[in-house]
Amino acid sequence: MRNQFAAACLIGLSLPSLAVPPTVAQVLERSPANDWRALDPQNTLVMNLAAGQVLIELAPRFAPRHVANIRTLAREGYWDGLAILRVQDNYVTQWGDPDAEVPAKAKPLGTASARLPAEFSIPLKGLPLQPLPDPDGWAQVTGFVDGFPVAANPKTGQAWLAHCYGMVGAGRDMARDSSNGAELYAVIGQSPRGLDLNITVVGRVLQGMSWLAALPRGTAEMGFYADAAQRTGIQRVRLLADVPEAERPALEVLRTDSTTWPALLQARRVRQEGWFVHSPRHINLCNATVPTRPRSPMPPR
Amino acid sequence: MRNQFAAACLIGLSLPSLAVPPTVAQVLERSPANDWRALDPQNTLVMNLAAGQVLIELAPRFAPRHVANIRTLAREGYWDGLAILRVQDNYVTQWGDPDAEVPAKAKPLGTASARLPAEFSIPLKGLPLQPLPDPDGWAQVTGFVDGFPVAANPKTGQAWLAHCYGMVGAGRDMARDSSNGAELYAVIGQSPRGLDLNITVVGRVLQGMSWLAALPRGTAEMGFYADAAQRTGIQRVRLLADVPEAERPALEVLRTDSTTWPALLQARRVRQEGWFVHSPRHINLCNATVPTRPRSPMPPR
Repeated sequence: MRNQFAAACLIGLSLPSLAVPPTVAQVLERSPANDWRALDPQNTLVMNLAAGQVLIELAPRFAPRHVANIRTLAREGYWDGLAILRVQDNYVTQWGDPDAEVPAKAKPLGTASARLPAEFSIPLKGLPLQPLPDPDGWAQVTGFVDGFPVAANPKTGQAWLAHCYGMVGAGRDMARDSSNGAELYAVIGQSPRGLDLNITVVGRVLQGMSWLAALPRGTAEMGFYADAAQRTGIQRVRLLADVPEAERPALEVLRTDSTTWPALLQARRVRQEGWFVHSPRHINLCNATVPTRPRSPMPPR
Repeated sequence: MRNQFAAACLIGLSLPSLAVPPTVAQVLERSPANDWRALDPQNTLVMNLAAGQVLIELAPRFAPRHVANIRTLAREGYWDGLAILRVQDNYVTQWGDPDAEVPAKAKPLGTASARLPAEFSIPLKGLPLQPLPDPDGWAQVTGFVDGFPVAANPKTGQAWLAHCYGMVGAGRDMARDSSNGAELYAVIGQSPRGLDLNITVVGRVLQGMSWLAALPRGTAEMGFYADAAQRTGIQRVRLLADVPEAERPALEVLRTDSTTWPALLQARRVRQEGWFVHSPRHINLCNATVPTRPRSPMPPR
């Protein structure tokens, strides 16, 4: 029973005919090199925990003010020495300043803004959305922009980043405009799409979700740690641009405006791997995770 | 920023009028005692790990042969001393016999069956389904039966347990009928509904998901642990009926055939808590987790 259900993903059909659509593995193997993109140094956060590294891609198109503030906070070392404060099972892992609410003890925000306007949605009009034709109960329109899962309402003209697994948002208090990006959370369970349009989403974890999702759950209210000793310390958070080039993670991301992307979605809808006896013929926005892979070595000059 | 977004769940409106629907907290507070049910000792597994206890409710209506086999395996101590073998991020935690595939070393299954027919679906006809009116992309019909999330296809007449967060299934090999319930997995991420109708689902975790979801992820293929030392040992797994009454967990489960259940779903669709500025007016099958609570003390005789 070791070759369990996901084994299917590893088993290609040995003699695929033209009539049989490719498997997920085959789609990825056959993808042209330029269907992948490098990390953007200005839009990638590198968070170092003792256990490992978390890479977060920022979404300036959707939350320009928050992303700019987050860049400032990272450049000024705001999160260095702060901690993961909250892990609520099937919900979120959240990090920031344990003393944020105690003015005398709170870590100064430096040159970053303490309060920003809410960035819950942007205009749908003009957005380069790769639509997902599959129905979604939460929103009339879904799809991908810049590799991020997006939902939209054509009636109101709004589009927003969807709260899928691994998405990163900016915690806020009761006021709509009480977030500044200093306290962030990542989704670690079934996608809480009911949060959409209620909070500013700033990006997604590209690599290292394990380090955020496998942490002990907090036992105080809302999953906060009851005891400060249970918190996980943050060694440092840097913008990738500030990491020496030789130390940058060699990762690339599949372009959602490539031809590989719709082929990958189709391979997930119609499963050709031998293990599957039933194909869902459907994919959900939050199950359609955009893949990353180790960057191909540069050709010799 | 400590009173973050989920704080809303804890804040009731102080003066609810008849025109304003209640909050989630209010619906639960006002629920009559008989809208809750006790654990069924014949259909509850108690798994003891060093870190804590996991309670699993079995679904004999959906997988009668597997559930009967699992009862036999528990009664005969099959899992005692075995281990959690695989934790794949955003997918599953899986446990069983590390040596299951080595006939000379595999732990004997005792009087349990080594192979059972697949129990991927049951007839929709006659099923006491509490339908969920909200659209679901994966299935034409969704709802709840005996507290479990269920999807169905009226055209084929099939109904099945949906792969939501916390659901427990029986691992299988390539053959449809290669599962026996000895190797089990629990869903620990975004619901992998694409597995529906491909594998036998046997129940759901009622309590203790934290102990399964917060484990270190395995680094070998498919999230198996590369090193046996990384596995988490299982102290014992018993049927609740075999646990002395005084030691049984005092937990009760909301009945999905109660009037509280649809009221709770409505409170999740239309958020009256002060934090929310937008209501989704939708709930998804896998976000509509059925609540449990500590059992009310018995009235004095």
